[in-house]
Amino acid sequence: MITVALLGAGRIGKIHASSVMANPKATMKYVVDVYKKAADELAAQLSAQSVDLETVFADPEVDLVMICSSTDTHADLIERAARAGKAIFCEKPVDLNLGRVREALQVVANENAKLMVGFNRRFDPNFVDVKQSIVNGEIGEVELVTIISRDPGAPPAEYIKGSGGLFRDMTIHDFDVARWLLGEEPAWVYASAAALTDPQIGTLGDVDTAVVTLTCKSGKMAVITNSRRATYGYDQRIEVHGSDGMVAATNMLESTKVVSNADGVTSQKPMHFFLERYAAAYRNEFAAMVEAIESGAEPNPSGTDGEKSIVLAEAALESLNTGARVAVKYR
Amino acid sequence: MITVALLGAGRIGKIHASSVMANPKATMKYVVDVYKKAADELAAQLSAQSVDLETVFADPEVDLVMICSSTDTHADLIERAARAGKAIFCEKPVDLNLGRVREALQVVANENAKLMVGFNRRFDPNFVDVKQSIVNGEIGEVELVTIISRDPGAPPAEYIKGSGGLFRDMTIHDFDVARWLLGEEPAWVYASAAALTDPQIGTLGDVDTAVVTLTCKSGKMAVITNSRRATYGYDQRIEVHGSDGMVAATNMLESTKVVSNADGVTSQKPMHFFLERYAAAYRNEFAAMVEAIESGAEPNPSGTDGEKSIVLAEAALESLNTGARVAVKYR
Amino acid sequence: MITVALLGAGRIGKIHASSVMANPKATMKYVVDVYKKAADELAAQLSAQSVDLETVFADPEVDLVMICSSTDTHADLIERAARAGKAIFCEKPVDLNLGRVREALQVVANENAKLMVGFNRRFDPNFVDVKQSIVNGEIGEVELVTIISRDPGAPPAEYIKGSGGLFRDMTIHDFDVARWLLGEEPAWVYASAAALTDPQIGTLGDVDTAVVTLTCKSGKMAVITNSRRATYGYDQRIEVHGSDGMVAATNMLESTKVVSNADGVTSQKPMHFFLERYAAAYRNEFAAMVEAIESGAEPNPSGTDGEKSIVLAEAALESLNTGARVAVKYR
Amino acid sequence: MITVALLGAGRIGKIHASSVMANPKATMKYVVDVYKKAADELAAQLSAQSVDLETVFADPEVDLVMICSSTDTHADLIERAARAGKAIFCEKPVDLNLGRVREALQVVANENAKLMVGFNRRFDPNFVDVKQSIVNGEIGEVELVTIISRDPGAPPAEYIKGSGGLFRDMTIHDFDVARWLLGEEPAWVYASAAALTDPQIGTLGDVDTAVVTLTCKSGKMAVITNSRRATYGYDQRIEVHGSDGMVAATNMLESTKVVSNADGVTSQKPMHFFLERYAAAYRNEFAAMVEAIESGAEPNPSGTDGEKSIVLAEAALESLNTGARVAVKYR
Repeated sequence: MITVALLGAGRIGKIHASSVMANPKATMKYVVDVYKKAADELAAQLSAQSVDLETVFADPEVDLVMICSSTDTHADLIERAARAGKAIFCEKPVDLNLGRVREALQVVANENAKLMVGFNRRFDPNFVDVKQSIVNGEIGEVELVTIISRDPGAPPAEYIKGSGGLFRDMTIHDFDVARWLLGEEPAWVYASAAALTDPQIGTLGDVDTAVVTLTCKSGKMAVITNSRRATYGYDQRIEVHGSDGMVAATNMLESTKVVSNADGVTSQKPMHFFLERYAAAYRNEFAAMVEAIESGAEPNPSGTDGEKSIVLAEAALESLNTGARVAVKYR
Repeated sequence: MITVALLGAGRIGKIHASSVMANPKATMKYVVDVYKKAADELAAQLSAQSVDLETVFADPEVDLVMICSSTDTHADLIERAARAGKAIFCEKPVDLNLGRVREALQVVANENAKLMVGFNRRFDPNFVDVKQSIVNGEIGEVELVTIISRDPGAPPAEYIKGSGGLFRDMTIHDFDVARWLLGEEPAWVYASAAALTDPQIGTLGDVDTAVVTLTCKSGKMAVITNSRRATYGYDQRIEVHGSDGMVAATNMLESTKVVSNADGVTSQKPMHFFLERYAAAYRNEFAAMVEAIESGAEPNPSGTDGEKSIVLAEAALESLNTGARVAVKYR
Repeated sequence: MITVALLGAGRIGKIHASSVMANPKATMKYVVDVYKKAADELAAQLSAQSVDLETVFADPEVDLVMICSSTDTHADLIERAARAGKAIFCEKPVDLNLGRVREALQVVANENAKLMVGFNRRFDPNFVDVKQSIVNGEIGEVELVTIISRDPGAPPAEYIKGSGGLFRDMTIHDFDVARWLLGEEPAWVYASAAALTDPQIGTLGDVDTAVVTLTCKSGKMAVITNSRRATYGYDQRIEVHGSDGMVAATNMLESTKVVSNADGVTSQKPMHFFLERYAAAYRNEFAAMVEAIESGAEPNPSGTDGEKSIVLAEAALESLNTGARVAVKYR
Repeated sequence: MITVALLGAGRIGKIHASSVMANPKATMKYVVDVYKKAADELAAQLSAQSVDLETVFADPEVDLVMICSSTDTHADLIERAARAGKAIFCEKPVDLNLGRVREALQVVANENAKLMVGFNRRFDPNFVDVKQSIVNGEIGEVELVTIISRDPGAPPAEYIKGSGGLFRDMTIHDFDVARWLLGEEPAWVYASAAALTDPQIGTLGDVDTAVVTLTCKSGKMAVITNSRRATYGYDQRIEVHGSDGMVAATNMLESTKVVSNADGVTSQKPMHFFLERYAAAYRNEFAAMVEAIESGAEPNPSGTDGEKSIVLAEAALESLNTGARVAVKYR
């Protein structure tokens, strides 16, 4: 039985808490939040205890710390958890600053700690099926990956300000998916982007619509298109073109209902809310973390995966500023 | 909080148990099964108690009895639960014998008990969406309902023997869906059927492939096509043609993956297993039962719905034997 | 080069004329119509001659007579053409009266004439693909054929009056498709039908919405659902369920455009007009007739196919009147 | 009646010839080809005359010259036709050399000649439907255009050598579609590309797989993905994301057949051959040329459209060589 402490009792923390509760191999012992009331309430629901960080790190019973607090606390908490000898699950990103990411990962390495970074898409059953087709050789050599990733609506300005911008906040998932599906590290990044959906986003110095091209040394490519606002729902599609075929995953729809009338043949929209769209992914992600702890295997996606996505985000940002493609420097 | 006792710890009982566990308004107190070991094991998992029937009916704390035992026990248990003042959820069918169904429902009526019969399809989110479109007037007057209902594979001969035959065992769900979507009681039933998938089914006197036509006094019709064996999975589709349009629900697929290659463009199969296909339906069904108890409303589908499906199944059987349509006699 | 005479310069005659013009192996020599002006105009467009029937039958150059005139003239023209030694293409139906159909076919047999009856669906590329999958053994043994055949709107009352009713006018195509796909003659017919789309149709003694079940001696079945009015267009689908799989042909849509917005994901409607929907079928049908003449093979679908569809239509009508299934008597 | 002379009796010439023959407003008078035998044969089929160029340009009866000869002859023939006072339809590209394109267009301008460049995709009924949705305001402001354009297989090396490379030969169509759908001229071009499908293409200095990003001053973007080899057929899709929705056109399939079995649910492949895929487009394109001549309107797409696509192709090539985005200089 894996004993878990949850750091952060907000929206994403609650999601991970429900995965813990549903998993017969894990039990939730502690909930921590800077807003004590939030921690108390969630702990009560989970029959867990609301405590402070010190209690968590001091308790030898705690096997796994799940970091679901605000982004600026991630790196510190990773370091503390690693030093306390805990396995760590950390929501993406590790940090918005690449240097800080690397410091934290150094501590993880020094302590020989287990760290998984929360790239939920790698656990979506549809995307896993796509990856499996590639691994099975069903489409031959991968040549071109297309990722369509569009949110139903932009987050509030307050969130945008602290988000690190589109590439670090939203595209970061797509960078990870691209790396996962390409099977080769992108060597160059080119980004074109603008603030089209909401002028306020532009005023904040951010963009909301982007096309990012990743090119590998072998010539393999990935192209990501992002928008902060798709009026038809949460648009999450991938398509991998290979030497022997193509494999794609289309959107999950709100239901299978189809209405046919004089206006046309109308299917339902893509599922709107990311927590619903990726509900199965979150459960599977946690199960993979549990399995890594039990088997002693390295968690996957790892801290290095978290780092590389930030490297690609920074390269995209540099490309946007210079108008040229940027050679990726991993380390 | 609704206190529940589960009668029957088999496959379907476990499904309903998980709905109880997931529902914050309900708690499982007892598990009963003729195989004591099965009851003990499930009770342990649920932190419930494994007891005998007498304990259940004698305990005033028990609000709801969920009857998931073998079909031949349903009517007796309904009567005992009704007399003990419990609300009742009973898996379909109430009984294979129509007279026995009516006796049990009479006891329910006399005791003024609440009874829901487990027609899970009425709670499937896709089918609920279809029904809602009809209610909203999106397709005008209903004219023709088409129900395609095919199992991935026939049950074992042993099951077939005690099943009451295709119409009472499998089509019974479709009869209920047809009634629900037509919004008018079928007045005539015609059935054509044969044993095509497995000669053993024919030897047992049963059929495995059927076309059943239901016709209402107004001229509205429903047509059901059944097969015990669809090699491509569990085929569960409905289509309602109306004066202003058509509304349909297609199959839920195993994933959204699509592979395109020299052989064509291949999507995944329909979900294979009924417990997975109707997972959401089972949860919503239990929530509706809880709501009926809390609000004091009549559960829906009711015992009468259970009775009418059996009436239709008997009419289909008579039609199959006579080659003529049969006028339905509800009571 | 096949020399053709067209009898009937109306809508369907023009369609067949364009197939003749597009076929490099055929040439149109004559056009005949009771409305001389219609014949003159079409003949001018086709660089053909507008003549009377006597001229057509007396001219030894004419290889093929295409009968596209009103239904009540078909049988007479078939007999005259057969006696004149011409190959014959005749639009469905041969005649509304089964006895008259048989007389005409007797003359065809006596004269050893070639006769194709115009069941265009057998030449639709989509349906041909379905048939080919069956022939290839891709779905194993055929068990259940589903035919959905719905017109976008009912014809005018005047047409209905002389049409012979839904079964002889519209379902006749579906009877032929069912026989073609079942690969076995239906032995029993059951029909349920009503006038739901337009009360005037009921006043005329006809129906507009129907479910017809065909059952073979082996137990194979076909079910046809018809409506005279589908608000979403011309609904023409078939689905064949077999022991190893299912093969279906869905609707051809007006275009591949799909609009996604807050209202859903909307595809185009099925093609509305039968002449457009079956444009390729008409061309292929004529090419098959030409090939039959050139190769000396029996045309397919033959006069007997035309007769059997009328037999099934009469059986459906009898079933509708009696409420029982009717045993089909072919001859 | 428009009198037409066809220059070039090869594959594409034959396609346009069939459009002329099918159009009641046009007649084919002459066919010219450097291979006299090819011209003679096609002329015989069309009941036209096989002549030399001088005859065409000297005949005042000729209204329209259709240039379907090899690319290196286009510019010369445009100039000669313009000077002879003929309306001109020219297959893409006008010339591989931008300077030569501009010279030819100057002659067209001086002579006030009508010139349409053969971008057939603008006349595809599916893409026209997409454009119409944009024009109707159904998706609000265009933000992001995605063009997926993949050939089923690479042309022979001999063709590649003289093709001007992927961007001028294949992507040129997509550049035109992008401009048409964006409704604003792209200001910057970035291209990433490689030879992945066939090493011989790389040896010839060309690429076969590409991602091209076009960015407008307003921030609107288009992204084109190309491959010379899609094993699943000819992949031609567009998707336009706007402020109020998305409109897309998916592939046209070989038929509507769908096979469901234990391997999945398999639809047909996209139509394989471009002449079949764009059959309707070619007919509509010619009809638009006829209409432009009759109405006196400027043909569309015009010579300037032909020029701008070449400008974009050259910019893409420069970007590929420099690794930076290239500012487009139209003139």
